Amino acid sequence: MSILSILMKSDPNEPSSEARDDCPLCTGDGARLIWRGAFWRAVAVDDPGYPGYVRLILNRHCTELTAISSIEQEQLFKLLIAMEKLMREILAPDKVNIASLGNQVPHLHWHIIPRWKDDPCFPDSIWSTPRREAMQAANPARLAAAKDFLSRLPTLCPKTIY
Amino acid sequence: MSILSILMKSDPNEPSSEARDDCPLCTGDGARLIWRGAFWRAVAVDDPGYPGYVRLILNRHCTELTAISSIEQEQLFKLLIAMEKLMREILAPDKVNIASLGNQVPHLHWHIIPRWKDDPCFPDSIWSTPRREAMQAANPARLAAAKDFLSRLPTLCPKTIY
Repeated sequence: MSILSILMKSDPNEPSSEARDDCPLCTGDGARLIWRGAFWRAVAVDDPGYPGYVRLILNRHCTELTAISSIEQEQLFKLLIAMEKLMREILAPDKVNIASLGNQVPHLHWHIIPRWKDDPCFPDSIWSTPRREAMQAANPARLAAAKDFLSRLPTLCPKTIY
Repeated sequence: MSILSILMKSDPNEPSSEARDDCPLCTGDGARLIWRGAFWRAVAVDDPGYPGYVRLILNRHCTELTAISSIEQEQLFKLLIAMEKLMREILAPDKVNIASLGNQVPHLHWHIIPRWKDDPCFPDSIWSTPRREAMQAANPARLAAAKDFLSRLPTLCPKTIY
């Protein structure tokens, strides 16, 4: 048994931590891969309504925050803080939304979403009925900042994140 | 300067950490108060569609996760884990959703939402257009479990949470 497998000891009630053939986050990256660590990976969603929108996806198949190991939880919280900090510095959105739902794809993943007052759904959630068209394409500064944010993200991870 | 005020040193770019007269989470508890710590409080939302739905609300006014102090962040993560763990043990929902949006009320708060396959919006977010009526009232076992969960929640907090 490797050290990694000991560190990753899961909730025994979790139905499965094995890769599943029917799970899109087990069989693929989930979106455009921008960083991959030992436990988590970051992907760029590339939604025209929300430039800079990223997801953190657990590399292995588990469904809930409390079904994973404490080291995976610690890494997640460090990553959420590092990513939101960089997002605020580079993109300066009006608000940041963070969420882990997984009702449709029950493989643990977290959304980190920059929100602007003129985005399709603001001030509702991005899963609500849109109020307006995506206007971001008409905002070159915002698109450039999103590109900058995504390019810096792989190098931001402190040495304690692996 | 008190030790508490040093611990709570905020992001200097955060517009305000003072209580605001126009913020419903500064002027009131936000919903039915079930636990209050030094930094965070827990409230029961009492939504018939989602029995056991709770929110964690920062006691002072700040808008983003990375605008608050590291001790407030640490306490939040401990609380999220403790609350989700108890929710899964007592309520055993089909899924747990965790989210911090704050587009409408930009005072830092986190939703911890038990989800069931027959709830109004499943598998969409609770902020999406409902697909069905709230059927929870027809499920006495679920309502009893939610009541049990909420009654145990104030005593669950480990001694490290204050």
